Amino acid sequence: MLRSDFTSGPIAGSTKVYRDGVPFRRVNLSNGDHFDLYDTSGPYTDADAVLDLNKGLSPRKDVVRDRGTQLQRARNGEVTGEMAFIAAREGASPDLVRDEVARGRAVIPANHNHPESEPMIIGKAFAVKVNANIGNSALTSSISEEVDKMVWATRWGADTIMDLSTGRDIHLTREWILRNSPVPVGTVPIYQALEKVNGDPTELTWECYRDTVIEQCEQGVDYMTVHAGVLLRHVPLAAKRVTGIVSRGGSIMAAWCLAHRQESFLYSHFAELCEILQRYDVTFSLGDGLRPGSIADANDAAQFAELRTLGELTKIAKSHGVQVMIEGPGHVPMHKIVENVRLEEELCDEVPFYTLGPLTTDIAPAYDHITSAIGAAMIAQAGTAMLCYVTPKEHLGLPNRKDVKDGVIAYKIAAHAADLAKGHPRAQERDDALSRARFEFRWLDQFALSLDPDTAREFHDETLPAEPAKTAHFCSMCGPKFCSMRITQDLLT
Amino acid sequence: MLRSDFTSGPIAGSTKVYRDGVPFRRVNLSNGDHFDLYDTSGPYTDADAVLDLNKGLSPRKDVVRDRGTQLQRARNGEVTGEMAFIAAREGASPDLVRDEVARGRAVIPANHNHPESEPMIIGKAFAVKVNANIGNSALTSSISEEVDKMVWATRWGADTIMDLSTGRDIHLTREWILRNSPVPVGTVPIYQALEKVNGDPTELTWECYRDTVIEQCEQGVDYMTVHAGVLLRHVPLAAKRVTGIVSRGGSIMAAWCLAHRQESFLYSHFAELCEILQRYDVTFSLGDGLRPGSIADANDAAQFAELRTLGELTKIAKSHGVQVMIEGPGHVPMHKIVENVRLEEELCDEVPFYTLGPLTTDIAPAYDHITSAIGAAMIAQAGTAMLCYVTPKEHLGLPNRKDVKDGVIAYKIAAHAADLAKGHPRAQERDDALSRARFEFRWLDQFALSLDPDTAREFHDETLPAEPAKTAHFCSMCGPKFCSMRITQDLLT
Repeated sequence: MLRSDFTSGPIAGSTKVYRDGVPFRRVNLSNGDHFDLYDTSGPYTDADAVLDLNKGLSPRKDVVRDRGTQLQRARNGEVTGEMAFIAAREGASPDLVRDEVARGRAVIPANHNHPESEPMIIGKAFAVKVNANIGNSALTSSISEEVDKMVWATRWGADTIMDLSTGRDIHLTREWILRNSPVPVGTVPIYQALEKVNGDPTELTWECYRDTVIEQCEQGVDYMTVHAGVLLRHVPLAAKRVTGIVSRGGSIMAAWCLAHRQESFLYSHFAELCEILQRYDVTFSLGDGLRPGSIADANDAAQFAELRTLGELTKIAKSHGVQVMIEGPGHVPMHKIVENVRLEEELCDEVPFYTLGPLTTDIAPAYDHITSAIGAAMIAQAGTAMLCYVTPKEHLGLPNRKDVKDGVIAYKIAAHAADLAKGHPRAQERDDALSRARFEFRWLDQFALSLDPDTAREFHDETLPAEPAKTAHFCSMCGPKFCSMRITQDLLT
Repeated sequence: MLRSDFTSGPIAGSTKVYRDGVPFRRVNLSNGDHFDLYDTSGPYTDADAVLDLNKGLSPRKDVVRDRGTQLQRARNGEVTGEMAFIAAREGASPDLVRDEVARGRAVIPANHNHPESEPMIIGKAFAVKVNANIGNSALTSSISEEVDKMVWATRWGADTIMDLSTGRDIHLTREWILRNSPVPVGTVPIYQALEKVNGDPTELTWECYRDTVIEQCEQGVDYMTVHAGVLLRHVPLAAKRVTGIVSRGGSIMAAWCLAHRQESFLYSHFAELCEILQRYDVTFSLGDGLRPGSIADANDAAQFAELRTLGELTKIAKSHGVQVMIEGPGHVPMHKIVENVRLEEELCDEVPFYTLGPLTTDIAPAYDHITSAIGAAMIAQAGTAMLCYVTPKEHLGLPNRKDVKDGVIAYKIAAHAADLAKGHPRAQERDDALSRARFEFRWLDQFALSLDPDTAREFHDETLPAEPAKTAHFCSMCGPKFCSMRITQDLLT
């Protein structure tokens, strides 16, 4: 039995609404207006929802299982139910959604066997998305804790979840996450495969890996990280690095290749893998097993050699009708960020780029949500479609609930800053609505429109807890006489 | 009497050293090496220092009071004591320091009457600097609390402090901050002037302002924000903005101009002001009274009209031998950031740019240290010399001690990320040293080399508190079997 002490109910100042079945977070403003926001939180923020983690969420009813992938259907000119849903959610035209998917510039991770998930799209023509990694390790956490982190992360805006569990009960943990997740779920199947061979990378086989992938496809995993670009000949390129290979999957495959003096089974069996993923419409997330783990190693020969291989594999995946995105770094100083996007677009046919940060410096462990939010905003501005969050615990330990929220909020900031810079049609409306509320001293509206109404209010309450302060024309920062907005209002009105 | 419960003693894993009288934070590594870091914390992190807030710090002995400003002396070809100190601190040549000051591209804020401060430089050829705002408001805080924030902010790397007090005891608060501050102190004199006329902007006079400036020069303030660029004709340009005028000084001067239908006394008496500041070598920080307070208002006519006026004033200040820097925004979306730097350089003769963030989105109150660290890193990469921090409390209340630290660390990250991107000679050495420690599982070295060793260790301790874990070849994030670095080390060594 899962514990049932997860957080539910509406975000403060908002209610859940459905417009033609598509969910939004509706902020109800004190001036009578309302403002609808993209909402990733599923039924958990619906005051009327009946929630039972041990039963899972209700499945969508209109899942089409027998006509291939979203990519194949888009190529055939079809606007699927998922595409229509996404168009309404994004405020984009259904044709744009279909066309971007057909070109491979966007993906819709939606395993036929994960009908609990609400359709969403990852592509640079749409709002920048954020993924939150959860999952236990051998040293800490439980199934209930990880399911709770999933609910918590989506509450604050995670667009997808990756379950990176490597500890006990990998299958069961994933099962409960999938059955309760309103967003697509990604995994790295090599982790579970490694557990099956008791943690010795050299004991891995294609058969063991394949069976693990099928098991996870059957469960409903929506996208899978596959480190098929780490080739035998790439490994020596990483030997002189400051931090070697920092991807878990990358290091596992490098160990296998070196031990067997053989090409990676992920690479040699890639076409077979495509056939499996195609059957379920599982999206490839081609992993960057050789991503840089330090500023010193950014944009080096090992990293870009792998990216070239990922370009080859992209073409193969697409020829099988499988959706595909490419994972990117990692640790990259600011002046080397844009090159990553340009090369990915050039080598990988503009399929969606999905980057981990990047961290723009190595010197701030405990604050890597910030070192990396800087890089994430910049790489998203340059065209990255989804950002994998980094929490304050990165490099130090497994993130807890607080870390998950801190990571998600930092990345929603980065994603939104990029949407603004890219001129995404709806992005600035929210900034303007919040700033108008701020200028008009509608404090509660300001909180409600923010990414984290609870903390905004809590901070204001610290010095001015009384209710009248929520309409006062000043705060404790400047006091009444020095409030510039109050002075300006007196002047200009 | 000031309370004496401030934090002192060395940063964890470091000791204070002086090389030819110049202080450094020496990180003592477990492999016998050491690594010296730029150190803003003054005697407070010196284990041997005798500290008494009620007596103040010992003054430097070699302050030259009778030969004008650093700018004038640089123009005369002199390498001052301050310049030599700075050259050693920055790892730059003394000639470069002198030449940049002589050109006006760098400033050394060092009031003759603030000999407690250790010389530092602000200019784009040098490491990017960070300012921390402190100071009480009418609603909260005390002198002891603000002095404590000063010590605390410089401990974590604040290069200068601004005392923005607007509440009780403005003069006395500043006195205790100055006498105990190892870094330059900036102020906004109009705040105290306004207190003298009981908070009514229309009652301000040039004489009241001038006397306040002289009072603060005598005390030892190193740089002063002067909103002399807000002209009568600029005010209507701000009328249609989403957030009007958000600078306190800007709104005060706009109120004065409109009430009197007269040009700002700061502008009309600017030459007189130059003569006063020149006598003490106080640096102008020409304030951006019309900076944008929201994404909607960024880079608008009001903002750039003022910047043009600041360009005029820059030339006047320099002709009087007064050092000058220019303050910048504010709230700016990423794609509009670089234009700010280019225009400032063009209009203001490349004098140092000193920006508040900018925040790259308005939608995250309670996280504006992050929304703005993104903008700060980018604007510093483009050439901004000093970044004014923003704390999590921005827009919500007066920052407390925790907020001050969070703000400083976020901005040290932004500044360092920019130093890396600009190829500052010493910047990457630190990243490399930390990453090597990380790869070699020298956990304590990794913590000691970081911006915040206390929190890095605390986060690691959360899941693995035992001492042997500090040399273990894994952490709780991945556990022993899944540690990529452990696997790589086994592979490549």
